[in-house]
Amino acid sequence: MSLKKSNFKVIGIVGRVGRPTVADTLNSLSQFLTQFECEVRFETQTASLLDSKPNIAVKMAELEQCDLVIVVGGDGSILHVARVLADSDVPVIGINRGGLGFLAGVSPDEVESKLHEVLKGKHQTEIHFLIDLKVVRDERTVHRSLALNDIVVNSGSITRMMDFKLFVDEEFVYSQRSDGLIIATPTGSTAYALSAGGPIMHPSLDALVVVPMFPHTLSSRPLVVRGQSQITVIVESEEDYPITTADSQVTFILHPHDKVQISKHKNGLNIVYPAGHDFYQSCRSKLDWGT
Amino acid sequence: MSLKKSNFKVIGIVGRVGRPTVADTLNSLSQFLTQFECEVRFETQTASLLDSKPNIAVKMAELEQCDLVIVVGGDGSILHVARVLADSDVPVIGINRGGLGFLAGVSPDEVESKLHEVLKGKHQTEIHFLIDLKVVRDERTVHRSLALNDIVVNSGSITRMMDFKLFVDEEFVYSQRSDGLIIATPTGSTAYALSAGGPIMHPSLDALVVVPMFPHTLSSRPLVVRGQSQITVIVESEEDYPITTADSQVTFILHPHDKVQISKHKNGLNIVYPAGHDFYQSCRSKLDWGT
Amino acid sequence: MSLKKSNFKVIGIVGRVGRPTVADTLNSLSQFLTQFECEVRFETQTASLLDSKPNIAVKMAELEQCDLVIVVGGDGSILHVARVLADSDVPVIGINRGGLGFLAGVSPDEVESKLHEVLKGKHQTEIHFLIDLKVVRDERTVHRSLALNDIVVNSGSITRMMDFKLFVDEEFVYSQRSDGLIIATPTGSTAYALSAGGPIMHPSLDALVVVPMFPHTLSSRPLVVRGQSQITVIVESEEDYPITTADSQVTFILHPHDKVQISKHKNGLNIVYPAGHDFYQSCRSKLDWGT
Amino acid sequence: MSLKKSNFKVIGIVGRVGRPTVADTLNSLSQFLTQFECEVRFETQTASLLDSKPNIAVKMAELEQCDLVIVVGGDGSILHVARVLADSDVPVIGINRGGLGFLAGVSPDEVESKLHEVLKGKHQTEIHFLIDLKVVRDERTVHRSLALNDIVVNSGSITRMMDFKLFVDEEFVYSQRSDGLIIATPTGSTAYALSAGGPIMHPSLDALVVVPMFPHTLSSRPLVVRGQSQITVIVESEEDYPITTADSQVTFILHPHDKVQISKHKNGLNIVYPAGHDFYQSCRSKLDWGT
Repeated sequence: MSLKKSNFKVIGIVGRVGRPTVADTLNSLSQFLTQFECEVRFETQTASLLDSKPNIAVKMAELEQCDLVIVVGGDGSILHVARVLADSDVPVIGINRGGLGFLAGVSPDEVESKLHEVLKGKHQTEIHFLIDLKVVRDERTVHRSLALNDIVVNSGSITRMMDFKLFVDEEFVYSQRSDGLIIATPTGSTAYALSAGGPIMHPSLDALVVVPMFPHTLSSRPLVVRGQSQITVIVESEEDYPITTADSQVTFILHPHDKVQISKHKNGLNIVYPAGHDFYQSCRSKLDWGT
Repeated sequence: MSLKKSNFKVIGIVGRVGRPTVADTLNSLSQFLTQFECEVRFETQTASLLDSKPNIAVKMAELEQCDLVIVVGGDGSILHVARVLADSDVPVIGINRGGLGFLAGVSPDEVESKLHEVLKGKHQTEIHFLIDLKVVRDERTVHRSLALNDIVVNSGSITRMMDFKLFVDEEFVYSQRSDGLIIATPTGSTAYALSAGGPIMHPSLDALVVVPMFPHTLSSRPLVVRGQSQITVIVESEEDYPITTADSQVTFILHPHDKVQISKHKNGLNIVYPAGHDFYQSCRSKLDWGT
Repeated sequence: MSLKKSNFKVIGIVGRVGRPTVADTLNSLSQFLTQFECEVRFETQTASLLDSKPNIAVKMAELEQCDLVIVVGGDGSILHVARVLADSDVPVIGINRGGLGFLAGVSPDEVESKLHEVLKGKHQTEIHFLIDLKVVRDERTVHRSLALNDIVVNSGSITRMMDFKLFVDEEFVYSQRSDGLIIATPTGSTAYALSAGGPIMHPSLDALVVVPMFPHTLSSRPLVVRGQSQITVIVESEEDYPITTADSQVTFILHPHDKVQISKHKNGLNIVYPAGHDFYQSCRSKLDWGT
Repeated sequence: MSLKKSNFKVIGIVGRVGRPTVADTLNSLSQFLTQFECEVRFETQTASLLDSKPNIAVKMAELEQCDLVIVVGGDGSILHVARVLADSDVPVIGINRGGLGFLAGVSPDEVESKLHEVLKGKHQTEIHFLIDLKVVRDERTVHRSLALNDIVVNSGSITRMMDFKLFVDEEFVYSQRSDGLIIATPTGSTAYALSAGGPIMHPSLDALVVVPMFPHTLSSRPLVVRGQSQITVIVESEEDYPITTADSQVTFILHPHDKVQISKHKNGLNIVYPAGHDFYQSCRSKLDWGT
């Protein structure tokens, strides 16, 4: 049997561990890819989920050497991979085995049809920008992380609030006493920030939104600023230890007077969607606008 | 010097520990009360804050034997005292040394004038009902608490959501995936529930409000039910351990399948306000409606 | 053919004019009822929609002499009938040929099965209270109306706002500059008030909600008060002529200084639902909570 | 007396008619400007408000020949002038004699100090972009207007809703049944759109926000898109006649199937503020963030 050409020579595969349906999809994906002229590299943990173990398995970081990375899981799995691939230009495509699936653009039953098209070159790529998180304590950077969706600064417990000051581009915005703030990218605007009352932002918009969490001052409202803006949150609480999280996956405990600095990352994540992908169509189906 | 008559013979005093302004108010309050025919009993910890230590100090629970309890602190201090006095009929009056002060109706600079009036019988009493929290695990009650403001059921961390089912009067309301729920009394409707988007409920209303916290389903909205309603939240999360809190002061860790049951407590707290107290006036001044 | 017994001897029928599907349902309903021992009286306009015109047609007001009134249309049709039957005790059942259908509890394809049950006595009745609207100008009542869902006081045009004062039980609540206010019953809480950010109130709750429309003061929030409360809105705008509407069906133009008074009507509307009707089930299906 | 130099040689003045305080400010402004080397031209109607009538008065449109236009009134007066000066580059400064005053950056009691600074060159200029409104009926443009704050498409009456389709950059977004939509610039994001639940957008952001008005679908949320986006609303209501308004000042009645097209205007309005103007300071003072 002669193999079909693929636009991508080396394909990496990552799957979410701990969900049985992911293994099913990985097995059929593995089988499906044998008909193409391409090399398939499974991430080590992912490889262990397969019925027939592959000869080669690579570390997460080595996925940077692929031409395309296929992620099987939910949006959370893509958020995780985003941090790994942030500084490469490797495109990523997601097969949704999770919840809403704004990022994972292929549903499991479309794997054959849609992925076939993508490998033959019929696809579109959207660049989703990331944001850098830097925590400065006594003039030293004590923590760094990256996020595709959002950075949250939070009191760390629903039984207390936190006091903080917000600055945008070094201009003082407000002092607030609340549960905290969500700073989201357009990508993240349909995730946690939306539940907190933030607006939906089109993926092509160059902007960040700052959404207060249960603010004491009722007139505190979501604030949309330019994507280039530098956002700084200064912890004012003297006794409590709030936290900051990146994409709800990396948590760091803050001290009084810590500066949490958020700004656009130099690179973005290239997300591949089957041709015809449409953001508003995703909104209609995922946010029940259809009715 | 002959002493003035007081409508209240035995007066208990509780102050919030750890805030210097509270000690100031306690000292002047102690001085002020010497001109009245009444016995003053300081709670033990509170007594230690006074410049001239009193001869008698009583335990928190013994405040039940007073005719009036004066609380110096914020609404939080009154919430704490409410749980102690829930099953007595002892009225409580608050001198506000905290934040908003919806419950603590006397401001520190009004102590002399307003308290004078109150002791001479010029006051009004509002009954604020409390709610019972009961956690049932495998048919056994594993936790009980009381709240004046609200009971919160929460995932316990902003990095994860919780799954639960809500029932009101044994009727199924919805399954939800969110950060949790706030169940508030009218008293609590101007506190945390308000920050989460709940309505303001007049203190005389016999109702409870259920406010979803960052709900995934955007159409989830605050739900107001009768005060007599029994509210049940069943934890569906299999792996995570959410929490429940009463008035943000008593926290209990929940297990999968736990039933959190909330219903009106048989007694209410009698809160004393100076004559002329007006709920809407409080709203206007505390919620910036005045502008 | 011997006729089946019906629990209701005289049945009135009203249909919404101007919607073809209503005529279809009226025809099959007319046919369906011939098998029961009961007298059927069509309202005059409704009668004209039938393929075979009935011998007797009655005026809207004469429906008061029926034992049950069947309304074919949307919630709007029931709102209309509610004003007519407010002071009788005639129960109403709705067949939904409109939008959401919180009040019209029978869907057109269930007519045979559900209505059969209802006529045989298998049904439940919910009393939905109505509210009185009275406009007082220079101490004279210049307008009265009734509403099942809501009374709206509005500037009358999106190009201007209105100034007014709100009082509840003669207590001053606030002065506001906004597009207006919605005052809704629990029945109306799932209608217009919900779109404006109001809470959902269980139909059995004895309460009213006041929802500001596009308030200038951002801290203005929905306010829930006792059902017995008297709500008064005083028009402060000197030049503009705002309006008040009852159930979006009866509009009246207000003058400066007019007092709009809203209070619970002495009677309620008896709405009949098939046995097993469940408010939360309606919410889940109509408000997309199911997902 | 030798005159002081002014950076602006020809200064136009427009005042809001019908508000006594405006005349006061115009008189003192007129007096104040006599000490500068500049020519002052009052708009005709404005001239009639002055105690001592000026020799020259110009038409509104002739203000295009000034070097600076001073507007005395509220934000509404600036919105009006914006449409006149849209295609010139004449900068505008506002003296606030109205409500919130986000655009009118000088308060009446600061006229001497702040305006002195501005005339001496100590000021900053912000360009606020405008949006074009075009209504297309049967392929012909039947209406055009301009807005600085917002374009509203609305049912025209609170007693009915409207049906419409929304497109952004020719992509279908949703069909909606609601009271309508507000499409706002960053400038307008602190005005009507904010009351309707929209986010605050920094004036430097190149974006538009689409805010649904009382949407029937609860998951409909504010949507932020790029400033370059073309927004199209197609009227679907067959019988009703909705309206569209520009800055709440120019109203046009729509027909079924009309296309309302909104896009960024080629020019912006240059608004002059005294040096040190700070958007967030305006938010804090005008939106009660200060508390």
